Amino acid sequence: MEKRILGIDPGLATLGFGAVLCDRSQTESRVTVLDFGIIQTPAKHDIGERLCMIYDDLTSLINYVQPDLVAIEKLFFYKMGNTIAVAQARGVVMLVLAQFKLPLLEFTPAQVKQSLTGHGNADKRDVQEAVARELSLDRLPKPDDAADGLALAMTAWFQS
Amino acid sequence: MEKRILGIDPGLATLGFGAVLCDRSQTESRVTVLDFGIIQTPAKHDIGERLCMIYDDLTSLINYVQPDLVAIEKLFFYKMGNTIAVAQARGVVMLVLAQFKLPLLEFTPAQVKQSLTGHGNADKRDVQEAVARELSLDRLPKPDDAADGLALAMTAWFQS
Repeated sequence: MEKRILGIDPGLATLGFGAVLCDRSQTESRVTVLDFGIIQTPAKHDIGERLCMIYDDLTSLINYVQPDLVAIEKLFFYKMGNTIAVAQARGVVMLVLAQFKLPLLEFTPAQVKQSLTGHGNADKRDVQEAVARELSLDRLPKPDDAADGLALAMTAWFQS
Repeated sequence: MEKRILGIDPGLATLGFGAVLCDRSQTESRVTVLDFGIIQTPAKHDIGERLCMIYDDLTSLINYVQPDLVAIEKLFFYKMGNTIAVAQARGVVMLVLAQFKLPLLEFTPAQVKQSLTGHGNADKRDVQEAVARELSLDRLPKPDDAADGLALAMTAWFQS
């Protein structure tokens, strides 16, 4: 049975995504990369325009990937100033996912690290190496936000 | 010259709105109420469904009111837990306003109080009485969130 999982690391300036195709038969299970990258919105535009870009680009991405399941990073308070911007962008992401009626899993950064490396406090590079190994990539996925998107998708795959 | 101003007090559970019609001729200026009320999303639905309700209801409201200008409350950190939910809802509101390419003014609660009562720390009832007086309403606008929407619209009117 094939399953397409899209991982999303929400943000206003940069939203990272990674999509994987999971294939589980009676005898084996396999996961391959479909796509990964980022949606960027330049700071010179006002917040409303930037949210429109996220809305439009994410809608196109979902139409292209056709995911069966989405994994998204849970939001915590990091820096006061930044959290409202990220939360506003995340609201638009959650809206688009609901408009497509997509099933959703939420993971904390620690859950993603634990699932990929066995350690909840692994560093960024350990996680990227685990993603590259599991997906048989010949180099580390870049940029970091795209790698986070792939790591979220892999975490959903390990859990399902 | 006629101008329609829509005030919005964003929230996930309850979004308040108030719309006024401003008419400024060479000899006099007049402001009358067009509509006020709330958009509510029940907590039994998941966050994505609730954001869809806000998106759909606000889109309908804007199609109905046809505002020339929107006034929205600036977001601050009140209670930690609540702020992310409010910010996610506010992201959807900002998206819809940008999709309609509506001009936007943002006000802090203190600016609204100052503009309507002359005191930045006026209480809720003082503000509601000022709104009712300015709009010649025969009773205080209710519920509170709708009154806040009207107060935001009036503040934009006073500033323009």
